[in-house]
Amino acid sequence: MDHAADPSHPRYRSLLMRHRLEVAAKKGMLADSALIAHGRGEAYDYLLGETTIPSADFATRVALETLASATHPVLSVNGNVVALAGDEMLRLAHKLDCPLEVNIFYRTPKRMEALLSDLNERNERLGIDVEILGANPDATIPGLKGPRAKCESKGILQADVLLVPLEDGDRCEALVAMGKTVIVIDLNPLSRSSRGGSITIVDELSRCLENMLEMNVGDSSSTKKYDHHQTLQAALDSIVEGMKSKFSEQKE
Amino acid sequence: MDHAADPSHPRYRSLLMRHRLEVAAKKGMLADSALIAHGRGEAYDYLLGETTIPSADFATRVALETLASATHPVLSVNGNVVALAGDEMLRLAHKLDCPLEVNIFYRTPKRMEALLSDLNERNERLGIDVEILGANPDATIPGLKGPRAKCESKGILQADVLLVPLEDGDRCEALVAMGKTVIVIDLNPLSRSSRGGSITIVDELSRCLENMLEMNVGDSSSTKKYDHHQTLQAALDSIVEGMKSKFSEQKE
Repeated sequence: MDHAADPSHPRYRSLLMRHRLEVAAKKGMLADSALIAHGRGEAYDYLLGETTIPSADFATRVALETLASATHPVLSVNGNVVALAGDEMLRLAHKLDCPLEVNIFYRTPKRMEALLSDLNERNERLGIDVEILGANPDATIPGLKGPRAKCESKGILQADVLLVPLEDGDRCEALVAMGKTVIVIDLNPLSRSSRGGSITIVDELSRCLENMLEMNVGDSSSTKKYDHHQTLQAALDSIVEGMKSKFSEQKE
Repeated sequence: MDHAADPSHPRYRSLLMRHRLEVAAKKGMLADSALIAHGRGEAYDYLLGETTIPSADFATRVALETLASATHPVLSVNGNVVALAGDEMLRLAHKLDCPLEVNIFYRTPKRMEALLSDLNERNERLGIDVEILGANPDATIPGLKGPRAKCESKGILQADVLLVPLEDGDRCEALVAMGKTVIVIDLNPLSRSSRGGSITIVDELSRCLENMLEMNVGDSSSTKKYDHHQTLQAALDSIVEGMKSKFSEQKE
């Protein structure tokens, strides 16, 4: 973490994200697979050039509009999301005036408690009062087995539009099968969540959320123009082009 | 780890590698960044189709020939290498009748001890007596600062050919600058180690080592034909093709 304190360092954001994960791991917020999953994301972000590509920026606008015009929008968070961008998710929920629900794949009482108390502390520190759900699951997502199916009836169950960053493929598909509009944030355009979501933003989580927080709601009618396949294709093209150009730079 | 015990499971190897890392982490063998680095590798291996591509198979043959015909070959291992393929590295050192040296980037006495004792246990369990170096560094790699420069004069310092899987870019370059033939195993064809090495095998570590252990030494005169740039280009092409084909499968 030598450089995590210096924002001018070219790897500042990457080191900052690792630092946030370390802190979260110590608090018991993360699953065993959390760091490996983050590493996979790092590889894709490196290939994307660690930048928000135009198609992702457009998808971000569409996502924001869709959330803002929903009847019951809900932001779903897991361990990595809280670790990497807990503040940003809460600020977005505040901006949209909607609840946030903790919805983790490897659900244990201890991890749930760690995540809920971390989010409550953040809520207080930010001086906002976003409704944080997940502590009292009274419903299940059809098609999923065990603790990973749990959700709240006034949260995920009744939501018409859901933001599910870094979501597991099975759960993403189960939510879509419930007829919900599912907005995914994922760095791998080939993942099952990216493909299965209704709207997919191929971007790094905190970068995407910062963009979303800066955007004004209602200044675009972009929603109709969103093409899911084209969005994923554009991300893939960027990754492929990124690889080729990195490779030719290196020959010189 | 539900499926780690079932070799017929399509994700068996991937789950097995994660399991090996978990065990190593508990023994204090890994750096903080180890799991993230592994996740990056997983992303590249997924794009490669989790298979040994022909150019990597050829580079593996070249590497084996080069090690076998060296005067002082040495196998250099770090925490992730011992965790993921400690047995395979020892068996390769035994096959080549050469020493293995523990050479870690984040060097602490505790991690060194954990790695050396793990390797000694493996040596005994395998019934072989590979010379394990690293405990008594009496030399440094020029151009590197601090503990990461440490090495043994009868090991890495005098080696003419080195196998350095999953090596840090700085150290790879420093070893090449010493005039050594440096053989890299790395899943990212764009990494500084991949580019900077003398011979690079773009393949998953344990898969590559199993291939190397099955190959006969001396049945090829492939060394002269190795083209570094072409090898990296072929890996990059495979990754790009893999992405495109995964994407078109998904459209169907």
